[in-house]
Amino acid sequence: MSQQRLVVIGGDAAGMSAAAQARRLRSVDELDVVVLEQGPDVSFSACGIPYWVGDTVGSREELIARTPAEFAAGDIEVRTGTRATEVDLDAGVVVTGGGERLGWDRLVVATGGRPSRPPVPGLDAPGVHGVHRLADGARIRGVLDGGARRAVVLGGGYIGLEMAEQLQGRGLEVTVVLADDLPMQSLDPDMGLRVCEHLGSMGIDVHPGEAAREIELDGAGTARAVRTDAGSYACDLVVLGLGMGPEVALADAAGLQLGVTGAIDVDATQRSRSHRQVSAAGDCAQTFSRITGEAAHVALGTHANRQGRVAGSVIGGRPARFGGVLGTAITKVGDLEIGRTGLSSAEAESAGFAYTTETVQSTTRAGYYPGATGITVKVLAERGSGRLLGAQVLGGAGAGKRVDVFATALWAGLTTDELAAADLSYAPPFSPVYDPVSVAARVAGRSSRG
Amino acid sequence: MSQQRLVVIGGDAAGMSAAAQARRLRSVDELDVVVLEQGPDVSFSACGIPYWVGDTVGSREELIARTPAEFAAGDIEVRTGTRATEVDLDAGVVVTGGGERLGWDRLVVATGGRPSRPPVPGLDAPGVHGVHRLADGARIRGVLDGGARRAVVLGGGYIGLEMAEQLQGRGLEVTVVLADDLPMQSLDPDMGLRVCEHLGSMGIDVHPGEAAREIELDGAGTARAVRTDAGSYACDLVVLGLGMGPEVALADAAGLQLGVTGAIDVDATQRSRSHRQVSAAGDCAQTFSRITGEAAHVALGTHANRQGRVAGSVIGGRPARFGGVLGTAITKVGDLEIGRTGLSSAEAESAGFAYTTETVQSTTRAGYYPGATGITVKVLAERGSGRLLGAQVLGGAGAGKRVDVFATALWAGLTTDELAAADLSYAPPFSPVYDPVSVAARVAGRSSRG
Repeated sequence: MSQQRLVVIGGDAAGMSAAAQARRLRSVDELDVVVLEQGPDVSFSACGIPYWVGDTVGSREELIARTPAEFAAGDIEVRTGTRATEVDLDAGVVVTGGGERLGWDRLVVATGGRPSRPPVPGLDAPGVHGVHRLADGARIRGVLDGGARRAVVLGGGYIGLEMAEQLQGRGLEVTVVLADDLPMQSLDPDMGLRVCEHLGSMGIDVHPGEAAREIELDGAGTARAVRTDAGSYACDLVVLGLGMGPEVALADAAGLQLGVTGAIDVDATQRSRSHRQVSAAGDCAQTFSRITGEAAHVALGTHANRQGRVAGSVIGGRPARFGGVLGTAITKVGDLEIGRTGLSSAEAESAGFAYTTETVQSTTRAGYYPGATGITVKVLAERGSGRLLGAQVLGGAGAGKRVDVFATALWAGLTTDELAAADLSYAPPFSPVYDPVSVAARVAGRSSRG
Repeated sequence: MSQQRLVVIGGDAAGMSAAAQARRLRSVDELDVVVLEQGPDVSFSACGIPYWVGDTVGSREELIARTPAEFAAGDIEVRTGTRATEVDLDAGVVVTGGGERLGWDRLVVATGGRPSRPPVPGLDAPGVHGVHRLADGARIRGVLDGGARRAVVLGGGYIGLEMAEQLQGRGLEVTVVLADDLPMQSLDPDMGLRVCEHLGSMGIDVHPGEAAREIELDGAGTARAVRTDAGSYACDLVVLGLGMGPEVALADAAGLQLGVTGAIDVDATQRSRSHRQVSAAGDCAQTFSRITGEAAHVALGTHANRQGRVAGSVIGGRPARFGGVLGTAITKVGDLEIGRTGLSSAEAESAGFAYTTETVQSTTRAGYYPGATGITVKVLAERGSGRLLGAQVLGGAGAGKRVDVFATALWAGLTTDELAAADLSYAPPFSPVYDPVSVAARVAGRSSRG
């Protein structure tokens, strides 16, 4: 068997996972693995950028899991600063910005996400920053080190709130402006409201229901304020936390089929439905809900890693399938941990489920044990069957990761009654005798039958 | 329908759960509920006693969930200080220490556990303390307040290590003497060894493999040292942490059938197999492993609560079944969290499983995030099928409760591959991009196929 070549476009989570997994399964004689990365880094933690900006993490280097040299030592050729400008799917060729025509037998498209940028005048001005690449983090750090005092964050999702928390930690006055009625749209409104109130209690100035109309610039053309219909919020920098769409320009131009979400249409093996020698993984690829089976686009590092690994396994000759997404996510703002998995009420509604919701209050530890804090757990169950559909968790230390118990139960397709009966751990430093997960599942089970 | 009477013998977790659940389902006209409790308290947290002794919890009252007066307000008659001395199963009568003959239509036996007391000379002397009742805690506190400086803990299980930690926290020199080769026999030896080393690093003097031969007394007959074959360990108090057997003297004398474990033989509805009008729940009752189906005796508050609730439901007319135990447990010593669920290697061996084990090292948070600590996860999987059989977790803050994810997967009967694919949560303050649970499950899945 003559040597084949795998070309991977994009060297972040999905791309490097695919490259590494294919490499594990195929010898150098069998497969040449080349990764093209337009930026200077591969395999970095985009999720860590807010914490680097906030000095919670000490250095840029800590966010880089592996360098191109380390990959090279593992027989994976990484070409940083190399942009793929064109893909010829029929000829099996990728063209680089330098004009090289690189042939491939198997191609992985891992071009990642594109930060959402609404058509707001001034959004492209200096002083408006994404949170996408390490260079974004470096630029924001530069502005902070230069004495910035006020920041406006656009958007109230995970990245937006993490940036708000971390910027406040650096001593800035922080304003969060969001078009939605509440932050954390992936939560139910009652839970989102608690998050909103918590942000307020931290001294973060939150303006829900206000779409940004214009970024106001100073004489030098630098962003100095965000104007909404309700007011103008002066600042020294604007941070974009408006979510992430799929970066599919290259794939689309090449003729790869896109799905209903606008991301590259792949099956559970991560192979393109239109071109079977091409795989896609990560933020550029469409995926599907494990609960509804419907197409979905969820830009998260966990999925990028897993999908990349599936793509690399399949290319390496080992069968593998991606199991779908539950929509599990976690973050914290100040001392409030936020976790969610499965369907929110709006999602359950939209998917046509008859469902009930129950919300319980408990404590993270035995009530009498020091450090116990409140925890709010909301559970969605299918009416009649009692099948678990989703869960949302808010609370102090130890609250957020409880969402993994719900995620595992969802993954297995348990009913709320089954989850309520599960033998979970108890000791006073860790939970009340009935863990809040068990209590919420039990109450939800009862009401779903009722 | 004339009013019936439910008598519950024992007013702790199992008994009060049974009483409360039966009460919820049956009106006062239908059912009279009487609880006989020999001690002064009902519904207290025995698991909290070490933390009260250690001043981690401020007062005795905090350990009492509900008082007899509160139960009375809910139409449950609680008679504290009332010992049941005899049960006539045919006549449906219980005799109290005061000579009263109380008739019952349904009986719940919830007499709890009996701390193991090996036949060691001197074990009954003053200065040797159990950790069973609040009175035990009060006595130990009295000894500490009186200036005790050195303690010997007998036994290296959960209660023993929690007492060791808390006594050290009160400033005592603590020696742990155990007959087993390692503390935490419910863990595999390699994990138990890590616990043992951690205790040593905390300055707790651990002597594994030394059975206590004698409690040495002073002239006044008070315990002053524990002698083993290897030495004599002087102390001001001895604490018994040798585990808990079922307290079945009353049930056995009455003729209730006991199971192979020596505990009361009940089915999944918690009804006695020999006398269907009698239920038993909690530490006095036999239960079964959800994984092997084999009879088991596990004295834990979680099971007592759940089994009591099942007993009360069935008596109240609502079908219910206890789902079995996984053997989930959690504790901490110092800054080491310890969790386990399912079968240990010894248990898997004994149950006849062909199995593989894998142990992975990871971090509780993203490696670069402040507060990340090491976490060790060991997973057992059935060879061939890859079915998850058990897991053990050691690590810093956030490590222990991860055992609940394994417990949920075990409860659902997932394979390690299925668990490895589950959509668990990730953000840098909470885990690496692959949670340690996922990594351990993946590695175990691979080796179970190999």
